Amino acid sequence: MYAYAQRVKYMQGSAVREILKVTEEPEVISFAGGLPAPELFPLQQLREGFARVLAGPDASSLQYSTTEGYVKLREYLAVQMSSEGINAGPENILITNGSQQALDLIAKLFLNPGDTVLVENPSYLGAIQTFRSYEANFVTLPSDEQGITTEGFAEIITRFRPKLIYVSPNFRNPTGLTMSLTRRKSLAELSNRFRVPVIEDNPYGALRYSGEHLPAVKSFDRRETVLYLSTFSKTVAPGLRLGWVVAPPELMAKLVLAKQGTDLHTSTLVQRALYYYLTHNCVESHISSLRKEYAQRLALMLREMAAYFPSQASWTRPNGGMFIWVTLPDKVDATQLLQEAVREKIAFVPGSPFFANGGGENTLRLNFSNSTPEQISTGIERLGRLLDTKLNPKLED
Amino acid sequence: MYAYAQRVKYMQGSAVREILKVTEEPEVISFAGGLPAPELFPLQQLREGFARVLAGPDASSLQYSTTEGYVKLREYLAVQMSSEGINAGPENILITNGSQQALDLIAKLFLNPGDTVLVENPSYLGAIQTFRSYEANFVTLPSDEQGITTEGFAEIITRFRPKLIYVSPNFRNPTGLTMSLTRRKSLAELSNRFRVPVIEDNPYGALRYSGEHLPAVKSFDRRETVLYLSTFSKTVAPGLRLGWVVAPPELMAKLVLAKQGTDLHTSTLVQRALYYYLTHNCVESHISSLRKEYAQRLALMLREMAAYFPSQASWTRPNGGMFIWVTLPDKVDATQLLQEAVREKIAFVPGSPFFANGGGENTLRLNFSNSTPEQISTGIERLGRLLDTKLNPKLED
Repeated sequence: MYAYAQRVKYMQGSAVREILKVTEEPEVISFAGGLPAPELFPLQQLREGFARVLAGPDASSLQYSTTEGYVKLREYLAVQMSSEGINAGPENILITNGSQQALDLIAKLFLNPGDTVLVENPSYLGAIQTFRSYEANFVTLPSDEQGITTEGFAEIITRFRPKLIYVSPNFRNPTGLTMSLTRRKSLAELSNRFRVPVIEDNPYGALRYSGEHLPAVKSFDRRETVLYLSTFSKTVAPGLRLGWVVAPPELMAKLVLAKQGTDLHTSTLVQRALYYYLTHNCVESHISSLRKEYAQRLALMLREMAAYFPSQASWTRPNGGMFIWVTLPDKVDATQLLQEAVREKIAFVPGSPFFANGGGENTLRLNFSNSTPEQISTGIERLGRLLDTKLNPKLED
Repeated sequence: MYAYAQRVKYMQGSAVREILKVTEEPEVISFAGGLPAPELFPLQQLREGFARVLAGPDASSLQYSTTEGYVKLREYLAVQMSSEGINAGPENILITNGSQQALDLIAKLFLNPGDTVLVENPSYLGAIQTFRSYEANFVTLPSDEQGITTEGFAEIITRFRPKLIYVSPNFRNPTGLTMSLTRRKSLAELSNRFRVPVIEDNPYGALRYSGEHLPAVKSFDRRETVLYLSTFSKTVAPGLRLGWVVAPPELMAKLVLAKQGTDLHTSTLVQRALYYYLTHNCVESHISSLRKEYAQRLALMLREMAAYFPSQASWTRPNGGMFIWVTLPDKVDATQLLQEAVREKIAFVPGSPFFANGGGENTLRLNFSNSTPEQISTGIERLGRLLDTKLNPKLED
């Protein structure tokens, strides 16, 4: 019984989390998490990075450092950004504890209680939770296979006066879908015209398995209203907690103040060791081997789904990322289904929490990056059989 | 020109920061920062820790992990806490990115715009900035050499209905002063009686050079209204960004939700490597060598101040920590003095930003942990001469 702030009302735990606790048992095959494959982490190379940075005699990697982040890492990232078509110098880049922290800092800068955020539907749960903790309201954007439909968008902006627009254009969590080039351009144009900041969250962009690379929304930003976020969590390792945000100078200054009050700065040591790793290894070949392995797991999961899932289920066929999104007939409640699934030693995440304003009870998300081919085959067969029993009950005689 | 949230108005950069940029020049002797001595970091031992944790084949140190933090590190800390007289299990401990993050999370849970926070006067600038970013008002507590005076405190609570009380009982930043045992007890009692949470921030507790160890305010907490914060920044290394908060179960659950939305969790790798370091080295003997070295630097600085500072200046004689606090005659403005000091290649931090509601223009903070004995001797002599010229101008003939 403490006298909490108003916002605490909106900080809710997940009921699904309780159900998913059983997935820690080793015999459960879980497609629930959003984890990369640990066997693909560059363990040896990172070990070398930490050893070199801690070799001495310079001990500054263990000292306090600037809030903005390690300048060499920011210079490296500025160069990387140009491959996304983004024109940025180190002075535009803030190092964060994963991109989740960037979401929090941006929300802190922009959201008063009751402010509106436009989000895709469904959208990344972690972003919804962060915006909600700042007492935001949500307006969900109509979208299809090409991402949010930008027709009608101007009317939505005029009507709801949003403070922020949150999108994740590449193989987004949870659907795996990608925003088309045309829509990226019109989103940037609309953001510029109405001066509504777009948060472009791109954790999965490097993990494309098919189709052509598309430039970032930020690359079409002419009036400094797009903030670009990414992370090393999916390309190197999430346990480092290293991400970054690209922002125009005025916003950078505010983000730095916000981060200073939040945690002073991101680990000096981790930034330096990661920088050593990035500049002493062929990162592109590492990412290319990730792509190859994940592409196989995705293809296998899609094949097994085609073989075992009943005809009433439909699902996305992503060009990258870590997730497949499944839609079941309206009458099926995926949270209830999960209870049955865990009894069969199989787990997934029900889709409804990804819908900021409710709905989607008949949807679920499957992760393919964190399971071995054997687990994918066995798990999808199990889940397919459960779905089939549920949707096509056999008459007993 | 962005449509910021209301709170951004209260997120101000420091004017002093600009002046202090010159202290990066190598010939400037700076007592301005709050940095530990990098030559005392356990570089080799931490290197070993990272190497062992990254030795494989287990790669889980690079994977996502729980928001609460590494359970073995939390178990270790729970045991440590008992030496502070604090009864806590791992379930009461949340790992944070330094204690600064704990301040931010607690502020997020408790502060609505306009809420009141009681703070010592002067108080830790980083805490003031964090509370301010949540649009807090401050009521400053009358205090003397024994810490805040708890007489009259009940009236202050009744009158101002504070949401939080922030104190740092051991050798606090910026004054170096310590709260007496009696006042610790009455603070806990008052917090319990009025159910106003106390944030007990203890970054320097292990760095005591004289006098007797005093139990934590939290150790007198009978009704779960005291939150205890500490960090490895001063005892191991700040570049790791590792701190913790001890909280009752209900608050732990809320802190975990808040941290989840803020950055998911603290670096898995850093937590594991630090745990390896803590359990494979004699940390007590490391801290004891820190104490020995810092005690010498403190003693030297006090001796040099006695020798070179004019009689109109007075200062604290701390029993630990990293700072000495200087009070000059009312007419001296320490920010203006700093401008003159940097021309003489010497720097300090003016005291006024540490006063939440203004004042203290004639005060300044000196750090002694980050300078060599030679720098301390030369620097204090320089500063003393500057002060003397200013306060006791010689008549030219």
